[in-house]
Formats: sequence, C-alpha cells, structure tokens
Amino acid sequence: MVSRPELSDHRKKTSQEMYRLIEELYPICRSITGNGVRETLKAIGKLVPLDTVEVPSGTPAFDWEVPREWNVKDAYILDPYGKKIVDFKQLNLHLLNYSIPFNGKMPLTELKKHLFTLPDKPDLVPYRTSYYKEAWGFCMTQHQYDSLEEGEYQVVVDSTLEDGHLTYGEYHIPGRREEEFLISTHTCHPSLCNDNLSGIAVATFLAKELAASQPEFSYRFLFIPGTIGSITWLSRNESLLGRIIGGLVITLLGDDSDFTYKTSRQGNSPIDRIARYYLNSQREGHSKIRDFIPYGYDERQYCSPGFNLPVGCLTRNSYGEFPEYHTSADNLQFVKPERLAESLEVIQDLVSILENNHYFINLNPKGEPQLGKRGLYDRLGGGNEGKELQLAILWVLNYSDGDHDLLDVAEKSGIDVGVIIHAARLLREKELIKPS
Amino acid sequence: MVSRPELSDHRKKTSQEMYRLIEELYPICRSITGNGVRETLKAIGKLVPLDTVEVPSGTPAFDWEVPREWNVKDAYILDPYGKKIVDFKQLNLHLLNYSIPFNGKMPLTELKKHLFTLPDKPDLVPYRTSYYKEAWGFCMTQHQYDSLEEGEYQVVVDSTLEDGHLTYGEYHIPGRREEEFLISTHTCHPSLCNDNLSGIAVATFLAKELAASQPEFSYRFLFIPGTIGSITWLSRNESLLGRIIGGLVITLLGDDSDFTYKTSRQGNSPIDRIARYYLNSQREGHSKIRDFIPYGYDERQYCSPGFNLPVGCLTRNSYGEFPEYHTSADNLQFVKPERLAESLEVIQDLVSILENNHYFINLNPKGEPQLGKRGLYDRLGGGNEGKELQLAILWVLNYSDGDHDLLDVAEKSGIDVGVIIHAARLLREKELIKPS
Amino acid sequence: MVSRPELSDHRKKTSQEMYRLIEELYPICRSITGNGVRETLKAIGKLVPLDTVEVPSGTPAFDWEVPREWNVKDAYILDPYGKKIVDFKQLNLHLLNYSIPFNGKMPLTELKKHLFTLPDKPDLVPYRTSYYKEAWGFCMTQHQYDSLEEGEYQVVVDSTLEDGHLTYGEYHIPGRREEEFLISTHTCHPSLCNDNLSGIAVATFLAKELAASQPEFSYRFLFIPGTIGSITWLSRNESLLGRIIGGLVITLLGDDSDFTYKTSRQGNSPIDRIARYYLNSQREGHSKIRDFIPYGYDERQYCSPGFNLPVGCLTRNSYGEFPEYHTSADNLQFVKPERLAESLEVIQDLVSILENNHYFINLNPKGEPQLGKRGLYDRLGGGNEGKELQLAILWVLNYSDGDHDLLDVAEKSGIDVGVIIHAARLLREKELIKPS
Repeated sequence: MVSRPELSDHRKKTSQEMYRLIEELYPICRSITGNGVRETLKAIGKLVPLDTVEVPSGTPAFDWEVPREWNVKDAYILDPYGKKIVDFKQLNLHLLNYSIPFNGKMPLTELKKHLFTLPDKPDLVPYRTSYYKEAWGFCMTQHQYDSLEEGEYQVVVDSTLEDGHLTYGEYHIPGRREEEFLISTHTCHPSLCNDNLSGIAVATFLAKELAASQPEFSYRFLFIPGTIGSITWLSRNESLLGRIIGGLVITLLGDDSDFTYKTSRQGNSPIDRIARYYLNSQREGHSKIRDFIPYGYDERQYCSPGFNLPVGCLTRNSYGEFPEYHTSADNLQFVKPERLAESLEVIQDLVSILENNHYFINLNPKGEPQLGKRGLYDRLGGGNEGKELQLAILWVLNYSDGDHDLLDVAEKSGIDVGVIIHAARLLREKELIKPS
Repeated sequence: MVSRPELSDHRKKTSQEMYRLIEELYPICRSITGNGVRETLKAIGKLVPLDTVEVPSGTPAFDWEVPREWNVKDAYILDPYGKKIVDFKQLNLHLLNYSIPFNGKMPLTELKKHLFTLPDKPDLVPYRTSYYKEAWGFCMTQHQYDSLEEGEYQVVVDSTLEDGHLTYGEYHIPGRREEEFLISTHTCHPSLCNDNLSGIAVATFLAKELAASQPEFSYRFLFIPGTIGSITWLSRNESLLGRIIGGLVITLLGDDSDFTYKTSRQGNSPIDRIARYYLNSQREGHSKIRDFIPYGYDERQYCSPGFNLPVGCLTRNSYGEFPEYHTSADNLQFVKPERLAESLEVIQDLVSILENNHYFINLNPKGEPQLGKRGLYDRLGGGNEGKELQLAILWVLNYSDGDHDLLDVAEKSGIDVGVIIHAARLLREKELIKPS
Repeated sequence: MVSRPELSDHRKKTSQEMYRLIEELYPICRSITGNGVRETLKAIGKLVPLDTVEVPSGTPAFDWEVPREWNVKDAYILDPYGKKIVDFKQLNLHLLNYSIPFNGKMPLTELKKHLFTLPDKPDLVPYRTSYYKEAWGFCMTQHQYDSLEEGEYQVVVDSTLEDGHLTYGEYHIPGRREEEFLISTHTCHPSLCNDNLSGIAVATFLAKELAASQPEFSYRFLFIPGTIGSITWLSRNESLLGRIIGGLVITLLGDDSDFTYKTSRQGNSPIDRIARYYLNSQREGHSKIRDFIPYGYDERQYCSPGFNLPVGCLTRNSYGEFPEYHTSADNLQFVKPERLAESLEVIQDLVSILENNHYFINLNPKGEPQLGKRGLYDRLGGGNEGKELQLAILWVLNYSDGDHDLLDVAEKSGIDVGVIIHAARLLREKELIKPS
C-alpha cells in the first residue's frame, strides 16, 4: 500500500530492539499475578510511559474475583541419589504455574501423580497451569519421565500464594478524537516467546511509534494477564467502553506463518472490514480470515455478549495449531526479528487505513464538477483514459454521499485504498468534498 | 443426532405395524369423498383417537364448494364374447375415479374414447380422476388396449354421485403450549401405496408416539382429501391459524430414495431452518432441499398468499419424478417397512429439534462466567482444549443474546445441534442462561 | 421472448433505414457545439418531431458553463512543396476537435508538437479533442507522420470559436402515465459510426416506433453532446427528474459484439433488473452485465450522487475496449444494418417488459381459486402436469401479494417472463388478480 522506503533502516533497528526486549523478558517467570509481571512491565516502561495498576486480591470482577498473588523463590526435585533432576531456575516451565508450596518426600508412584509430559512430543516440556484448583506439579520431557527410577524423591516448591495484587500495564495515547482503539496483549505466560513475548514486543514498539505520530484517534494499550486480566480491566472501566471504536488482541506475531485475522463478534466493524480488505488485497492467497469463535484469547471477553466490542484478533499462526504451542520449543529460536518487524508494519498499515477511512460528502453532487479548471484532469481529452489516480478521483466524487467510506470506494473500484486516500486528499484540498 | 439405542426393537415393531396398516388399507377404493375414506379413517381410529368430520355436499369453502359424494358398488367391461376384461373389484385403479353411473353397449371405437393407458409404460395401469367434469372411463395397460378386438362391448359403472358428505380425520394433541404444529397427509388416493398410504401410516404412528411424549408444542394431524380437503379444513378453521408455528405435509415416505424437503413459501420459518440444517448435516450429499413452488400437494393451499403458513413438505422421491408415480406399480412391493421406519425417525428428529430450539439470554453476559467453580470446566488449564461439549458451552453462552436460537448456534459453531441442546440444558441448570 | 414474426420484413426495412441515416450523418463534423450538431438534428427531425434547443454560450450549468460555439470552414497542412498532406474536408478526424483558428508557417519540429498519432495502430487516424484548453492540432496516421520530411509547413485552421449556442434535440412521447423513461444518446462525435451514429440511429427509430404504440409510460429522448450536454439538460430540467423511473444511455450498437449492460448506480432499479434478467436468460453466456462505474458515457452525469437516477447504459462492445474505438476505423464498414436492427429489438424487448411488469394482488388469496370452472385448468386431473402456462398461472396467483412483480415471478419460477405476462393477462381478465 503506502510505500515506506524510509523504513528499511528504521525497520531493521526496530526489529532488533523488539527481539532484544524478548531476550530480556524470556527468563522471567510470569503468571496471572506476581513479581514476574511487575518486572516485565518495568522493562516495557523503560520504552513507553506505562501506568502500572495493582488490583488487590479478592476484588470482585463480574462473576470472578482477583485471585491471591503467586510468587516462587525456588522449586526442584531431588532423585533418590539426591541429584537435582528438575530445576525451576533452569527453565520456569518445569513448575506447574500457580503450584502451592510443598516440601516432602515420596515414592515415584506418588510423585508421578504430579508430573506432566507430552507423550507425542517426547523432547518437549509442556506448559501447564492450575490457577483455580490448589495443586502442585512439575512438567518434564517424556524421555526424562521414562528414565525415572524407583525410590524416594524429595520435592521442594518454595512458592507463596497469598493475598497481594493482580498487576497490569496500561498506556493511553490521546488523539485528536476521544474515540479510542484498543490494543490488548497478554502478559501471563512464563518462558514462551511467540505466545506471548512477541505480542508484548510488537505492542510496545507500536505504542512508541504511534505516540510520536499525533494520531486522529486515541489509542489504549493493555498489557494484562489472560482472562482474569481483561475481565478485571473491563470491570473497572465500563464507563470507557462507549469510546472504543475498534481494537485488536495481538499475539503470536514472531513465527514464520502468514497472518490470520479473526473477526470481532460483530463481524463487520471497521477493523474487521479493514483487516479483511488489507489481508485479502495485500496478502491474497496467503493470509486467513476467520469468523469469530468464542474461544481463543482475550477477544472472548471483549466480545462477550454483554460488551460485544468491535475487537478482533491478529496473529500469524493460530492458537493451538502449531507444534511448538505451549511447550518449551516456543523459545528464542522460534521467533525472528524480521517477522516481528513485518507484524509491526502490518498493524501500522491497518491503523493507517483506520485513521484515513472517512465518509465524505460531495459538495458539488449534481453532475461531475469540472475537474479541468482545477488542474485535476488530463486536459487533452479523447486519448486513452485510465490513469489510476484520475479514476480514483471520479470514484471518490461519485461515492462521497455520506453512505460509503473510502474503504467501500476501494472495494467497489478495485483501486488500492492508498490511491483512494490520496484522491480524497486532493479533492478535499480543492473543496470538492468534505468529511460527513 | 440424538441416538436412540432403545428404538431398534421398538422401531422394528413399529415398521411392521405401519406396513400392516398399509396392507389393510390398500384394497379400499378411496376418493375425495365416499365410504372408502370413512373405512380408512376407521382403521386409523383404531390406533389413535381420531375425530371424523363430515361436511355436507354444497358447503361453500372459499372459492370452492364441497362436491357430491361418490361411491362405487361395481364397475367392469365385458368384451364381445361376454368375458369380463376389466374389473374394478380386482383393481380399483381400473375405474376413472369419480366416474358417473353408466350402463350400456357400444362398439370398440366408441369405447376407446373412455379408455386411459400409459403408452410409454405399456405394462402399467394409470391412475386417473375426473372430479369436476362429469365423465366415466376405465384405465388399463397399453398391452391390453392393443389386444382389444372389434365388436360390441358392455360397460357397467354401478356408482352413485349424490349429495352426501366430504369426510376427513383430525387429531389434536395438546402440548404445554397452545402454539401448534400441523401434520397433514392426503387420504384421497385409491390403491396407491407410496402416494399416499405411506404418509397415512407414518402420520398415524407419529401421532401415537407424540401423544405419549408430553410435548412442548401442540400437534394437529389432518387426514384429508387433497386440495378440496385442505381448502375445506382451512375455511372451517381460520380462527385457529394464528397458532400454527409450523407444519409438514407428508407423503411418499415408503420408497428407497433419500429425503426431499420442500420449504414453505416463507422459506426461512423454523421448520424450514430445521429441515435444511438436519438434512444438510445428517444426510449431506444425499437429501435435497427445494424452494417452494406453488404446485405439489396440500402445501400449495396452506402456502397460498392469503394464509402463507410456515408449512413445508417432506417426501422421499418427488411428486411426479418416479416411474411408479400414479400407476399400478405404486403397490405393496414398492414400499418397505424399514423405509417407513426411517421416515418416521427423521420426522421425530425434526420434531425433537423444534421442541428444544429456544432463544436464551445469558444471565452473566459481561465477560465469561467462571465455569470452573460450577464444575463446567476441565479445571486443569493449559492442556489441549477441544472437548466438544466444553466448546458448545462457550458457544451457547456467547450467543445467548436473545437474537440467536440454538439452531443458529449449531450452524455457527459446526457442532451438532444435539450437543448444543445438551450444553444449553447444563447452563440452564446452573442458572447461567434463561429462555428469552 | 415475445415473438415478432411480423417484424422480419419490417425489421429488414428498418435496418436499412437506420444504416442510411448513418451514411447521411457520417461526413458531418460534429462537436459539442456548432453547425454540425444542427445539421444532424435536422436530419433526425425529418424522421421524428424533434425539439431543437439552443442554449447560449456562458449559461451556467451547475459547476460548468456552456462554452463558446465552434465551427470550421477548412483546415489543412501544406508540406514544404506546397502539397496538401492533411485535409479536414477529406476526413474531419484530421483536425483536433475544437482547434482554435491558426494560420502560419513553421518547421517540422514545431509542427510535430501539434500532431497526434497512434503509434501502435500506425494505419489509423486518432480522434482527439481539446474542448477546455485552447489549442490547435492535427491527427494523422503514424505512417504519414514517419514520412514527413524536414522543411517549412504551412498550417491553416479556418475555424471560429465565438459566443453562440450549445444545441441539443429532445423528443417527449406522452404515455398513459406521467412517469417517464429516458433514452439518451450523444451527438458530439464527428465521423465515427459506432460511437455514436449507431446510438443516434437506433434512438431515432425506437422513438418513431414507440410514438406509434400508445405506451403505458412516457418516453423522453435526448440527442445531446456528451458531458456538457447532459449537465446542461439536467440543470435546465431539475423539476422533471422526479418523474424518471428509469433510463438508458445508448451507444456502440452497430458492431458485431454481443450486448453489455452497465447498471445504474442504484444497481437494482427496474431497468437494471429487467436488463439483467433479459440478457441473462435470452443471451446467456454471451452478454455481459457490469456494475456501475463512474466513468463511461452520460450515465456518469445522470448517476452523479446529487441525482442518482436509475439510468443504465446499453452497448455492444464496451467503451475503450475495441481497437477501432476513437479512430478512423470506426467507419461505415464497422457498423452493420442487421446489428442495428438487433439492437433496436433488444431495447424494444426491454421496454416491453418494463411496460408489462406490474405488481398484482390476488383477489382470492385463501387457497387456490377453482381454475376449472373458469376454463383455466385442464379438467382431467391425474395425468402429466406441466404445461408451462398452467404452471405460470399458479405462480402468478401465489405471488400476487403486492410484494412481487412479474419479473420476480419469472425469476422464481424459471418460466419466461413473456409466458408469465400472458398468465397475468388471463388472470386479470377472469378478475382473479388486480394491479396493486
């Protein structure tokens, strides 16, 4: 669409910065609460001026309440010979997320009730959680599990699960209009890169660049734990929701797949139309458009029937559909700087269409205006018509009726929306159209 | 859909009973009026408590009036040698239905003006009627016709066409709601099995089983002569019509073809949506859905523009599209017990969806409710999602907005409507949804 | 559809007369103003009683104003040897249309700035205009251009560009109703036959035959210069526009291609529906239906958003899509009498559907009326149904609900609209339906 030759260097630099942020955040043990989230938000806060919000345990949030806060000092298993065979400090996925404190000895049979593996991917450590049922457990490869010998094992889970806070980050960029666009990304996953350090990195740099651009709309970025985070935020911000004209849940943006857009529940809101148009025209045959389904990421909360917000979800690969999903293979090798940069650019393109996609009124709607006298027409008639911008001018004029926005004109005409936006800008300068 | 293991024995028994009813009714000479209809209704009345309605000849019915009643004692032709070559008592199709009384001699040339054959199916006797033009005639095979010798023929039609009554049967099964569903089947055909003893048999046993089931809706069964019967019933029951939320004309249900559903004139009424969904999902690639056309069976009266009732038509083969149609080949060999049973089951499945397909309201519409604390969620998160019932629960919750019924949810989700109905039942028990 | 056996002779005669009109008009130098237009209208006026309207130069017309009038006495170029190498009198395309007066000598390099050719069609002379930028110029073949020798050339453009008038023709045929249908064709092209003497010829003979037929609707024919002509007419007739229930811009009707219908901006107005139905059913697989685009012929003015009139455009080949377009090859050989006649017949068929396509109300909407007693039904039932007119009668009865016109019935039933119109006529005679 809009070409960005000036970006190539800038883009390379940004791609490196996004990847560096992921490297920095990878070792941290995040969960839906706890110090790992605070550390993560602090790192983001060095790049954009983030508000950090602390919501006390027990605070009601619609049908839910904010859970106790979970923190881990250490966790490991010693084998019958006293050898540390599983170590949280080496890979935080080894610990069942939200494991309650435990310290004790037990035979292998008993221990096995607390072990999780992936039998069909025997080299990988799974990611497992137990937020709402008190339990402790460890995750390991199937190979390791199969090699465990009979005997007494020592288990240490030096964690705390106590009243504390749920922590999330929020960044509001005011635009010329109060209507706002929401970008939401989850922060509750421990050492998993695509899901969702990629989303965190792209959101951070998108926010940074948008803040510098004096946008038309306002933009609100949420860095929140999945499910309970969005529900908590919604419960505290109901009065804001009327301003939300669109939004994107972003995640899984660092892998090699092409893009997938899942529409909002409304299905035809502005961001749905823009993403459908953009992916179909710019990445035709590669990208996927999927209708809303009520599971996936936090769009399921934003799109619950009581809110029905126009929030879609942009990913590359889809939730649960790639082998590295929710395993130790979703690591620093699985995400790539150039993919992050491409993801950032796609979202910037969507935002650019959103910012420019207005409804116009033709100020001279009876017959065509005389374009020649305004320098908008190749003055020597009769030759081969067809210059795209001239056609775009006729399309914009004819459909500046208050019922069609520029995206409609692009779709009707088959002319790139960037050219249509350019034509509208020229016509507006000549006072032949005005925003409706 | 809903599996019915308990049916296999019951179903076998029912299939035999339906076939036996057909065997009993086959020899009777039915028409749009007369004792044949009374005898037929009496046989049905032994199985379900049928009301028999007698409407006097001359009674006006919209643009029509009830015709004189027709009865036959005997009818035959003697050849020049005095041999009975055509005998009504052997096969009632031989007599042109509604033939006026006649007794006389004539040469072959004259006789031929009163003979009907099927030149392209020379072994079959056609079925012909002359309800509204006074005439007499006989139907025979083309082979017999070709073998007739010159000479004097003696013709006897010992019939009566006199003021009497039009007779039909009606059976109303009250449900928990007054809104009713109509099942209509025609009773005017003489010795033709698929068209329409199959419809009579299936309707009878459907009524019997529905009456035992305490249904949600009320059900009304009509056993009526085609065209004049439905017009007469409509003219006598206009005040009832507002209660009809759907209906089916059923016929042609005993042959080997797969099912055909012809929509009501409305095209998207509940029974249209249910039949379309059911045949497309359960008998995909085999069954046919056809748009309403203003000819066929009694749906053309129910769907006339002054009523426009949501009444579709369910058949296997279609009206006029199989070689046995309206011939002596539509006999006891042409219909099969197991096909009748399968037809009964399909209609029962449609009725079951109708009974359960409600609109619901989510009582906790802001964000998802916490399913775990209600035992509706696999409590150990992070693993492979995808159990169908759990997805069904999320779909029902999200679309319990008063605008989507369970059939919509089944279609949107691709999950079988039986599972969706089950999920809705669970959510209703937990008071997470209520009917809207 | 409606067969026209009586037309074959009449049609042959008409086709010759249309071609003869084109032959007469071909040599005349037309433009958006001037005596060539007057001469053209005078020739048309001998066939139909045309009003000729003269609008003074400088008259405002929305964003435009009527230009000065252009006339040419002579124009040529003499080569360095004094030989006349380009001569307006031989072919008026040689002169850039609207060339200002000029008389002078210049070297070849200077002359070339004023010459126009078609490098990729080196044998053809292009058609070029310069209405709104003062210029002079000549058009020639590329071969001739390439053969020009260095030296002094003498250029003479003996034209005038002075205050005068814009001239157009208008013919109003009153029908039984005041609502009117517009036929518009452009008259501004010089020696080009398909574009647009074919449109002029077909419009003239269509008007002649319509005037003799006592039509239901009124018809208004416009013979106007492109763009400025339609804008001028619209600016002078705004009060009339509410009466226009449809219209056609007609042009490019004499070549060998099949038909193209470009819908009005409304897309589904009566003439759009009729043309789509007609071309899809009568010329299936050959003709093209195109959605409205805001360039082409005068439909772009009629369909500008301030008017949005239901005016489509009927052509054979499309604007700009054939090699002869706007060149000297669009000559008397390029258009054929039989193609003109076929075009006339297609438009007459469209008009015939328009005249007959009403909404009806069934006067006996409860059940079917008894057709037999009115002679509308094959009285011997039970046989093979299927005679098309009888089905058409049932379709018209069922959909005479005030919401479906006869074209809807034709589309729903798949029965030719001519048969549907015939059925409606019979039902109206029997007082079973009335117009709604």
